[in-house]
Amino acid sequence: MSHPQVTFKDTTFTGKTLLSARRATVSSKTLQTQLDQLKSTGRYDCFKLKWHPIYDDKSMWPVPFHLFWDSDVAKWIEGACYFLSENYDAGLDAAVQELVEMIRGAQQEDGYLNVHYTVVEPTKRWSNLRDMHELYNAGHLIEAAVAHYLYYKNEQLKAPVEKYISLIRKRFGTADGQVRGYPGHPEIELALLRYATVTGSSEAYELAHYFLTERGNPEGQDGKHYYDWETEQRGESRWMRPDAFPTNRTYWNCQAHLPITEQTTVEGHSVRAMYLLTAVADLVCLSDSGDKPLGEEARKSWTNALDQLWNNMVDKRMYVTGGIGAIKQWEGFGIDYFLPQGTDEGGCYAETCASIAVMMLAERMLHVDLDGHYGDILELCLYNNVMTSMSTDGTKFTYVNQLASSDKDKSERSDWFWCACCPPNLTRLYGSIGGYLWDYGPGDGGAYVNVHLYSSAQVSFAVGDENSVNLHQESNWPWEGKIRFRLSSTKPVDTTLRLRVPAWAQGSYEISPEAPEPTSLKIEKGYLILPPVYTSKNPEFSLEIKNFAPRYLSPHPYSMQHVLALARGPIVYCVEDIDNDWETNHFKDITITTDSRITEERKEDTETGESYIALHSNGWTRSVPNCGGGARSSVDRDLTFVPYYFRSNRGGRGQMRVGLVNGGSVIGTVFPERGYTG
Amino acid sequence: MSHPQVTFKDTTFTGKTLLSARRATVSSKTLQTQLDQLKSTGRYDCFKLKWHPIYDDKSMWPVPFHLFWDSDVAKWIEGACYFLSENYDAGLDAAVQELVEMIRGAQQEDGYLNVHYTVVEPTKRWSNLRDMHELYNAGHLIEAAVAHYLYYKNEQLKAPVEKYISLIRKRFGTADGQVRGYPGHPEIELALLRYATVTGSSEAYELAHYFLTERGNPEGQDGKHYYDWETEQRGESRWMRPDAFPTNRTYWNCQAHLPITEQTTVEGHSVRAMYLLTAVADLVCLSDSGDKPLGEEARKSWTNALDQLWNNMVDKRMYVTGGIGAIKQWEGFGIDYFLPQGTDEGGCYAETCASIAVMMLAERMLHVDLDGHYGDILELCLYNNVMTSMSTDGTKFTYVNQLASSDKDKSERSDWFWCACCPPNLTRLYGSIGGYLWDYGPGDGGAYVNVHLYSSAQVSFAVGDENSVNLHQESNWPWEGKIRFRLSSTKPVDTTLRLRVPAWAQGSYEISPEAPEPTSLKIEKGYLILPPVYTSKNPEFSLEIKNFAPRYLSPHPYSMQHVLALARGPIVYCVEDIDNDWETNHFKDITITTDSRITEERKEDTETGESYIALHSNGWTRSVPNCGGGARSSVDRDLTFVPYYFRSNRGGRGQMRVGLVNGGSVIGTVFPERGYTG
Repeated sequence: MSHPQVTFKDTTFTGKTLLSARRATVSSKTLQTQLDQLKSTGRYDCFKLKWHPIYDDKSMWPVPFHLFWDSDVAKWIEGACYFLSENYDAGLDAAVQELVEMIRGAQQEDGYLNVHYTVVEPTKRWSNLRDMHELYNAGHLIEAAVAHYLYYKNEQLKAPVEKYISLIRKRFGTADGQVRGYPGHPEIELALLRYATVTGSSEAYELAHYFLTERGNPEGQDGKHYYDWETEQRGESRWMRPDAFPTNRTYWNCQAHLPITEQTTVEGHSVRAMYLLTAVADLVCLSDSGDKPLGEEARKSWTNALDQLWNNMVDKRMYVTGGIGAIKQWEGFGIDYFLPQGTDEGGCYAETCASIAVMMLAERMLHVDLDGHYGDILELCLYNNVMTSMSTDGTKFTYVNQLASSDKDKSERSDWFWCACCPPNLTRLYGSIGGYLWDYGPGDGGAYVNVHLYSSAQVSFAVGDENSVNLHQESNWPWEGKIRFRLSSTKPVDTTLRLRVPAWAQGSYEISPEAPEPTSLKIEKGYLILPPVYTSKNPEFSLEIKNFAPRYLSPHPYSMQHVLALARGPIVYCVEDIDNDWETNHFKDITITTDSRITEERKEDTETGESYIALHSNGWTRSVPNCGGGARSSVDRDLTFVPYYFRSNRGGRGQMRVGLVNGGSVIGTVFPERGYTG
Repeated sequence: MSHPQVTFKDTTFTGKTLLSARRATVSSKTLQTQLDQLKSTGRYDCFKLKWHPIYDDKSMWPVPFHLFWDSDVAKWIEGACYFLSENYDAGLDAAVQELVEMIRGAQQEDGYLNVHYTVVEPTKRWSNLRDMHELYNAGHLIEAAVAHYLYYKNEQLKAPVEKYISLIRKRFGTADGQVRGYPGHPEIELALLRYATVTGSSEAYELAHYFLTERGNPEGQDGKHYYDWETEQRGESRWMRPDAFPTNRTYWNCQAHLPITEQTTVEGHSVRAMYLLTAVADLVCLSDSGDKPLGEEARKSWTNALDQLWNNMVDKRMYVTGGIGAIKQWEGFGIDYFLPQGTDEGGCYAETCASIAVMMLAERMLHVDLDGHYGDILELCLYNNVMTSMSTDGTKFTYVNQLASSDKDKSERSDWFWCACCPPNLTRLYGSIGGYLWDYGPGDGGAYVNVHLYSSAQVSFAVGDENSVNLHQESNWPWEGKIRFRLSSTKPVDTTLRLRVPAWAQGSYEISPEAPEPTSLKIEKGYLILPPVYTSKNPEFSLEIKNFAPRYLSPHPYSMQHVLALARGPIVYCVEDIDNDWETNHFKDITITTDSRITEERKEDTETGESYIALHSNGWTRSVPNCGGGARSSVDRDLTFVPYYFRSNRGGRGQMRVGLVNGGSVIGTVFPERGYTG
């Protein structure tokens, strides 16, 4: 039982794929760009505990501009450690070491380690868990410490973090003298569980378990909800609240309206929800692996909650791009089926971090229940909502990923954000993405590899003391469905492979060499199972996933989005004004039908260096009634579509749209595509 | 220049129409029912200034349950005065007189007259204009005083109100020693202007003019926005705010984000917006009539604002039922084209009072600019969003008027509301509705009558000292388009009639006797003009408005509502489970197309005593994809439609919908229907 942030080291990317190109860009460009941002904004030095002018800025409440700086630094360290092992860079190495020195120096005698509450409000530690990201920042320090420990193989960051965990553990819990708090922004829970797995720390596991169990307790502290209690302790009225709280006490914003196991719909801030559920799933993983058994009843109630919340999210609250969160105010979920494409239709947030966190959750869910649906969603997020959030040159980013631009919110990127969670999150994701491709190990009476993502890469892992298995895959994914596999091992071992057949392939694949009795190969819950009898006879084989023809996707009819989006394989497409330069109204009136002809064109964009498949089709600009009489007339249009991830890389006027008006009554494949009845 | 609340006395309803039936119910039943509610809830006695147990309830902030009691009483008095003149009732008369006695007794020495700030928080007068409805309550007292004065012809209520106005005028204004406040909930402005017109009070006019001019001043008080200033005076953080404020300082909620003349979109609480604009329109009316000239520049900037805000509302923020306000949180407007039909689609508020206020505004706009479009909207509101808000027996009400029910918000009525603004608002509207039918007077070189609404009624008015004109109309409106007119006068007078031809009639009418040269009759801006040459020759004539066949309406495509609603004449229809008893999903999946056949059926509902025209058509229950695979199959359905105003009168399970899924790509007539290019 391990985590992608640990196992990624077993995987080497080989050959040039879309994924390896992005990784190379992050390694060669993004890490340095982000380091420069850390330096120029004051973040790099923040652990020196000197006063920074921005600390005087009181215009925001309760969260000041600098509150997440600790985490920005920590996430960059984490990402750098992932890349250093594969592509050493002395400058980055030195920066990590200097940062770690500063962090060590910032730790207080008792172990406390937080910039804001050491420098700006030193008397107010732990006074506002709901809003002040104190435990969130701690979580990212813990994640950084794990990455640092595994790369540097020393305790320079692990040691202070361990001390900090002990301090936190001492304060929070159910024992006498402890208070019953938990973070407003979950993150530390998943960090603690990974830390516990890597280091064996019981304290970390117990603290995470406590945070997850206590959350949403209506009378945890002195008979009160913890957040009510701490509000009273601060002497604040409950009517005084952050702008992200639409009304008073809307604790669903941080998933604390009910104990987790009683929640049935996924609510509030979407990154918080996903980080939280990732930890819950990991709790179940740790139980299933025998490391930390939960007991049958407890396991059941946690997995029930996971299933309900996951299904609610995917079936009713996710965009076709893998984006989640329709509402800007709380950066989170709207009601079921409320999925407007952009600001002028009622919202669309689809934060980069949220989809990264969906990937993290999906990866954990694959361990709880090996079901290709989780792999499908993981891949959907990766190639669409996540990949779209960085420019092809690795230097510009999006935080919000709308499906349609508007005059108010154009399709464009930024160098950085005051709340800079997304850019370094991309860095650490791409750094550890190898760990998401597959999981594997001894088992199934020999060895197994469950392949979740296709690319060109190889993985090696030990089976017993003296044997090691190596699986190599080579493909032009996501453009073509053919993947060549090469399996080898030091000594013979019965190896079972499970290869994901995405739902959009509708079970259609070809394998070569064919199995002696082809019917003996089965797809189970989205995975084609190659038993040892096949793999031993065919250590080299190729799989071809079929059904790469462009297809139309529709959001669920209850979303009131009578639109069609184009997809090809895992890639969702959009139209941009750079290719369709007659457009002036954000493609709001562009209408297509499912029977219009689609052609493909392989493109090499010289400016960006990107190769991709563009799609061409046609439709028309619908005539829209002008109130006050009259109507624009309808105009036929040739349309060029590019991958959504590729948007906003080539200039233009920032006009873009994924779902175009459906001019007919027939709808496409209703999203989400599921390959089987679950 | 006069107001419908004053002129209604000139009109007598004759014969039985839908409108006169409702008026009879309100007169015979609703007034007494509401009086009983006032008594049983504590409102009736509140001006005795005794402590009521509910005053101890601190669960709401800043608005306690009883804050609007003054206005509930005032609105009932106003409504009672309207009906007493036509249908005297000794019990109601006695109640009015007793209430007025209590109000007189509640006035403080200095003229102050408010229950909450006399009994509950006597030291905090005028400390929170933004939230505390102090001036709103004053406004309703003023309206009651006007009605009382005109009916009783004594000063029993007018005198204390006059004293209160003076007190308010002393406090608020731009002079030294005055503060620059204005009400969070507009209402007093329109009340003051009516008071000024009826009594000639310059003080009242000037106070209203000041409130309208000062509103939204970013630095009115000590260089600050007044609401910021008073927040500071209270020692409150700007982060402490009512639940109706989505984020801090969202003063658009009360239309105070900008000076009125700089506002270009209609924002926030919809009743506030409409009351405010009604006053603005009246300011222009008073200028145009020569009573209170504004000067050309000022008139232009007020009318520009009126035009922009009206058009924004009608074209982009109004439901096909005449409802306004999509958002529950602030009981008000969403962004352009955001018009979900019900809670499970993202909201729909469509408050009764808001549509009543649209009628008030539309009536004023007809004086600013005689344009049938305003009459169309006035009528749309009356027969749909307003009329649907009371049961046929006059005893149960709705506050919110959604276009589709959901499990969370069924289509059902209540006896009363803690915030009881809507029921007595209906009473006073039906009491004065005669004043909305037409406007008239000497003019156009003789006399004129502009007929806005059809019914069976007659109006008499003086022309000069010795002549009076009488116009009688008789029809079975809104079911049939034929209206018989009879015009007479004491002495001959050149009379011009202007008769509204609704936009949905598409200019189609028949007049009999025909004009000698039919082409000489013209429709100008929605009004068929009958010049003296016609009316003198044909004092009895009939007009037939054509195009009563049922038609399909569609919301604007940008609303993302791919639905069709049925309408017939001014009546919008809905489906209810009582007629379509197989329905279990709130008609969410019922699909129709514009080519399905529609038949009409005249119905006399024995239980409710209502006659109406039901519509029958057919469609199907669409098959909706179940996430996780599978789909329900589609089922053909016969459908019965009833007028939306008639919903929720005959039991059933509270399932109802106006707009049904459009199964085709063709849309109906896009709402709003406008008869000409404006």
